[in-house]
Amino acid sequence: MRLKNNPRLAALLAASEERACGRRPLAGTAHSDSPKPSATAGRQYRILGLDTALRKTGWGIIDANGNNFRAVDCGVILNDRKVSVSDCLRRLNGALKGLLNNYHPDIAVIEGGFFCKNARTAIILGTARGAVLGVLAEAQIDIYEYAPRRVKQMICGFGNASKGQVALLVAQFLQIKVDNLSDDSTDALALALCHAQLLGTAQGLSLGEPL
Amino acid sequence: MRLKNNPRLAALLAASEERACGRRPLAGTAHSDSPKPSATAGRQYRILGLDTALRKTGWGIIDANGNNFRAVDCGVILNDRKVSVSDCLRRLNGALKGLLNNYHPDIAVIEGGFFCKNARTAIILGTARGAVLGVLAEAQIDIYEYAPRRVKQMICGFGNASKGQVALLVAQFLQIKVDNLSDDSTDALALALCHAQLLGTAQGLSLGEPL
Repeated sequence: MRLKNNPRLAALLAASEERACGRRPLAGTAHSDSPKPSATAGRQYRILGLDTALRKTGWGIIDANGNNFRAVDCGVILNDRKVSVSDCLRRLNGALKGLLNNYHPDIAVIEGGFFCKNARTAIILGTARGAVLGVLAEAQIDIYEYAPRRVKQMICGFGNASKGQVALLVAQFLQIKVDNLSDDSTDALALALCHAQLLGTAQGLSLGEPL
Repeated sequence: MRLKNNPRLAALLAASEERACGRRPLAGTAHSDSPKPSATAGRQYRILGLDTALRKTGWGIIDANGNNFRAVDCGVILNDRKVSVSDCLRRLNGALKGLLNNYHPDIAVIEGGFFCKNARTAIILGTARGAVLGVLAEAQIDIYEYAPRRVKQMICGFGNASKGQVALLVAQFLQIKVDNLSDDSTDALALALCHAQLLGTAQGLSLGEPL
């Protein structure tokens, strides 16, 4: 019911054409008929989304210019279960520095404000997050944080969207196929898209302060 | 009662001489009459203890050679409440890198395994901890983690010791005055001492794996 009632999702689902997969600028999105020019239109931002965890950190980079979004690259930084915490963090930081050197993002977006029942799990999650934030902070990149519910609201129009629904909309916005992408990459792209949409719509007024 | 029943603490409290404050090798400690030579005796380790938090990270560096311990330096990395999380992490990482460059510690010791009811607090604590661990991991320094109770057991002989009792024993082991030190510095020195004692006693057998 929710799915059908959501105009953005319904419009995309109704679109019958098979979009070509690939990484090229998206000509029209649900936002492209925005009545006001965006305050940030004309300036292109490269946004790095990061879905951080010690063993599996998804990353996704998009370019956003007003309401035009383009996928640049995405992937997952994997750490085997047998790898020590130190080695995980060293590999994570090294890979992240590599991404910063290769792609020079202007903004980083991470997941935050999530609910975690178990304090021990929260500390482990916080540890991976802290290592990543430390690298981003040293590189003087503005970091924004969004709760999963907020990301789903921005991408799908409602906060209870499933992973599949988010993936579908990410694919549509960026005109890419996400079937072969891991959930972590898709989530990272969704984080970047969430921020891109806030930059491109509402004249950036609903943007919070960076971390 | 516990205080009186603890032989190490009682022995130190009974010592009537006024020790000179300063940072010099401690000639005799409660461990110096250990019947077996330590497996690690003869090799000096420089140990950095870190009591991490976003706004206030205590640090303390000691040299340990068998059962001889010497305080090298200690302090606190402070971040004002108004400073953003990014700036806190940048300052924390910068200060830590400065310490590593100045003092070249062999081993780092952090607090871990603590109980945290609130998952949000745990994530914030984990974030500071992750940033610090990331820097230490990149510097390829072995990191050990001890629960507060374990530290108190190693320093005072029982896990329920008060902060004051820990500070008293830290002062005695290192022959320094801790009156002017912040709790965070003392806790950091206690972490370093905890590891030093495990290195110097029981032939290092009770040492766990580094993180």
